[in-house]
Amino acid sequence: MDNELAKLKEILAEVDDLSRASALLGWDQQAYMPRGAAEARGQQQGTLDKLAHEKLTSPETGKLLASLEKSAKSWDADSDDAKLIKVTLKRYERGVKVPAEMVSEKAEITAMSSQSWQEARSKSEFPIFQPDMEKVLDWTQRYAQLFAPVEHPYDALLDEYEPGMKTSEVKAIFDGIRPKQVELIKSISGKPQVDDSMLHQHFPEKGQWDFGVDVVTAFGFDWERGRQDKVTHPFMTNLGYGDQRITTRVNENFYNTHLFGTMHEAGHALYEQGIPKELARTPLYNGTSLAVHESQSRMWENLVGRSKPFWSHFFPKLQAIFPEQLKKTSAEAFYKAINKVSPSFIRVEADEATYNLHIMLRLELEIDLLSGAVAVKDLPDVWDERFQAYIGVAPPDDARGVLQDVHWSFGLMGYFATYALGNLISAQLWEVIQRDIPTLDAQIGKGEFKSLLDWLHEKIHRHGAKYEPQELVQMVTGSKINGDAYIRYLQKKFGGIYSL
Amino acid sequence: MDNELAKLKEILAEVDDLSRASALLGWDQQAYMPRGAAEARGQQQGTLDKLAHEKLTSPETGKLLASLEKSAKSWDADSDDAKLIKVTLKRYERGVKVPAEMVSEKAEITAMSSQSWQEARSKSEFPIFQPDMEKVLDWTQRYAQLFAPVEHPYDALLDEYEPGMKTSEVKAIFDGIRPKQVELIKSISGKPQVDDSMLHQHFPEKGQWDFGVDVVTAFGFDWERGRQDKVTHPFMTNLGYGDQRITTRVNENFYNTHLFGTMHEAGHALYEQGIPKELARTPLYNGTSLAVHESQSRMWENLVGRSKPFWSHFFPKLQAIFPEQLKKTSAEAFYKAINKVSPSFIRVEADEATYNLHIMLRLELEIDLLSGAVAVKDLPDVWDERFQAYIGVAPPDDARGVLQDVHWSFGLMGYFATYALGNLISAQLWEVIQRDIPTLDAQIGKGEFKSLLDWLHEKIHRHGAKYEPQELVQMVTGSKINGDAYIRYLQKKFGGIYSL
Repeated sequence: MDNELAKLKEILAEVDDLSRASALLGWDQQAYMPRGAAEARGQQQGTLDKLAHEKLTSPETGKLLASLEKSAKSWDADSDDAKLIKVTLKRYERGVKVPAEMVSEKAEITAMSSQSWQEARSKSEFPIFQPDMEKVLDWTQRYAQLFAPVEHPYDALLDEYEPGMKTSEVKAIFDGIRPKQVELIKSISGKPQVDDSMLHQHFPEKGQWDFGVDVVTAFGFDWERGRQDKVTHPFMTNLGYGDQRITTRVNENFYNTHLFGTMHEAGHALYEQGIPKELARTPLYNGTSLAVHESQSRMWENLVGRSKPFWSHFFPKLQAIFPEQLKKTSAEAFYKAINKVSPSFIRVEADEATYNLHIMLRLELEIDLLSGAVAVKDLPDVWDERFQAYIGVAPPDDARGVLQDVHWSFGLMGYFATYALGNLISAQLWEVIQRDIPTLDAQIGKGEFKSLLDWLHEKIHRHGAKYEPQELVQMVTGSKINGDAYIRYLQKKFGGIYSL
Repeated sequence: MDNELAKLKEILAEVDDLSRASALLGWDQQAYMPRGAAEARGQQQGTLDKLAHEKLTSPETGKLLASLEKSAKSWDADSDDAKLIKVTLKRYERGVKVPAEMVSEKAEITAMSSQSWQEARSKSEFPIFQPDMEKVLDWTQRYAQLFAPVEHPYDALLDEYEPGMKTSEVKAIFDGIRPKQVELIKSISGKPQVDDSMLHQHFPEKGQWDFGVDVVTAFGFDWERGRQDKVTHPFMTNLGYGDQRITTRVNENFYNTHLFGTMHEAGHALYEQGIPKELARTPLYNGTSLAVHESQSRMWENLVGRSKPFWSHFFPKLQAIFPEQLKKTSAEAFYKAINKVSPSFIRVEADEATYNLHIMLRLELEIDLLSGAVAVKDLPDVWDERFQAYIGVAPPDDARGVLQDVHWSFGLMGYFATYALGNLISAQLWEVIQRDIPTLDAQIGKGEFKSLLDWLHEKIHRHGAKYEPQELVQMVTGSKINGDAYIRYLQKKFGGIYSL
């Protein structure tokens, strides 16, 4: 058994090495690669991903897993090794269901669809993207069927990002919070709007960058085991033990973009920097799901970074960097400005109160597309209609409507819900954290984040991907994922800001 | 046969993808990687290199090659496909002789030796490196024996970098030029020294960087298919079609370091940028050997970049960037200064007249180490003794003597000779180029390099690795590699500068 486990770990280490190398190819592509290398880079990533898939789903891996699954019955179920077998087996079983041809077919489809989406978006003409989107959907429908029978066809997609999560659970959660968020936005809209004009001034890049570095350094980002680079579409990537990189962009004419983006990606990185070395080069050396990941990034961005105590400490420092721009602004006014609630068309720019509604719309559309209830050609109309119903405004064009997100063009369906679930989890965790660290607000007000990071490390990070999201949230908060805490958080915060 | 060729190309494309990805891991390690990632990065490179080796030397590859070797007999011997079979077969045959354990053994030895070398060099204490160097040598001796019988045991090492080249050939070439270079240096030492004090001033980084970019852009470096980054030890790396990157360093207190290093690496990159796309993802998508590669880098660095016509055009531009530092300097004085001949301890800082002597010393030492005629423990003494005999000065310590080069600590033996051979080839080519492009000096004097680059592209670059170095040099110059042209070049150039 020891030999089998060692052999399996050797295979998984190679799979991990291939995946991390592929991630570096991806990081470089976004951050530094010259344009002329696009085709070669795609081929290189294709080869690495294919070899990783082949190794993970090889008959040898299958045999080892079958034997080890039996042995593992006598192990401590919470041990790293037992979890490793469990998580790997699940990945293996998903992997072997997908024929190699479908993997390469998807690569071919999305190579085209990501191009046509870019063109469609820049011209704001959905018909340019429509034929490729139809191919993406057709592929996705066939893909979902590979995992039948499932309770709901969408479960097959969701399970890839939120292991163990069911569509019915997500719908129930969203159904619970939707009316409350809609009501909150309605009451806010009846109140005088906050002034955020000071955010729309010229803020030179260097000052923004340096302040962002100071903030995430204070959060606990370890620069010996990470770095930060500029890209067009920011992300965090884990390139193996000791290398968690964040990326960011700078808008010199709107302050929020850079700082809150940096906090967000640093939140992702703090999660992965907190996973112990013992789990490196295994499938456990990752955050457990996208939603739990998002709970970390949104917590640092919003619950910490958009909080009053945070700015009571940091606003004078920001003012010192941008004295001209901020001389007439108080910490209180700044706090209100960065929390301004205002229905808008673009998800990534949405405020905390509206954000989840953008997600709910997408989840419903994806479910309807998968079932065939909505046809691709009708997407723009259905989008606009439902957007008006949810957010209360109608997108002026497809670029700011159905074409705004890159996900579908990459073949990513089943992904969006994780963003909203992350918001909910962040608030659930926050209530427990505030109970466990009664002086947390005071600490944040002094620019100290060590107790918070230690808590997250102990309760979340150190487990890597050992637990499924619902298991982990239950373990840490005593409840499954639900929206109660998030609604309480929104009501309290925006009740204060808008005097509701 | 068509199927077999297609299948072989598919395998080779994957081998190439793995190797280029590994090269990106290496580039990133030097340029951007956070320190904490060192261990993981080593594992990732190990896995990619191992998988590439396994694929190249697999029984499947062997079978395909055996069959295609027969078919290829009826093909045009100069066709890409015929050369592909020939070159791949040679790599395969070398590859299968090396047991996998020896590959990983080397990785382990050099992981240690590269560390102990760094420590030994920084403390200038050879004994710190000695035990690991003994392991490197022992490994290298066993490795060389894998290829027996060969004319000379060192042939096995040389062949890796200079396909087809024999130790006896290299020795004969070096024996021919050594006395002439020694004599030249002697006559120079009897003449008044040129003044290069203007190079040892403060030159702020940005000005150096921008001027270097202008120069290599004028050379023809394609920024759509390449980029430049800062590192401690500069190099060029080919990351696949459309992606040839140069790296450089900046010394703000000595002008030569950055500019000539940048020209040098750009020379390497121009070679690989000139290889046609049809050869991409095959073993032919590389320069043909290290010496031919070095002929390109040294040509752009020295025959172009340290020439009078070049500075007649570019010196006023440099003066405009550094008016204070260069206001009292003429183009002529600057030209002499950058060509100052002065025996020194460090190879990479050596002038053109002395450089090859540094190499000859190393070649002889490597041959004596391999045969056992010199023991590792005696290296420092033997080094100092021979250095005094060749260059006329004795290194003050081991850091500036036997410990100066990184190569042995990486397990690279058989490599040094290629640097001197590159110098020789650059001069051989230059004589033909000046015959083919009679107005070349005038073009360079106007900052125009297109005819030169086109010539190199047509005669050298477009062949990739199709021809062995001796074949290629014979084809282009009508002679095999020899030192006559280089000696003529040195005598004329330094005869002028030092009024010999």
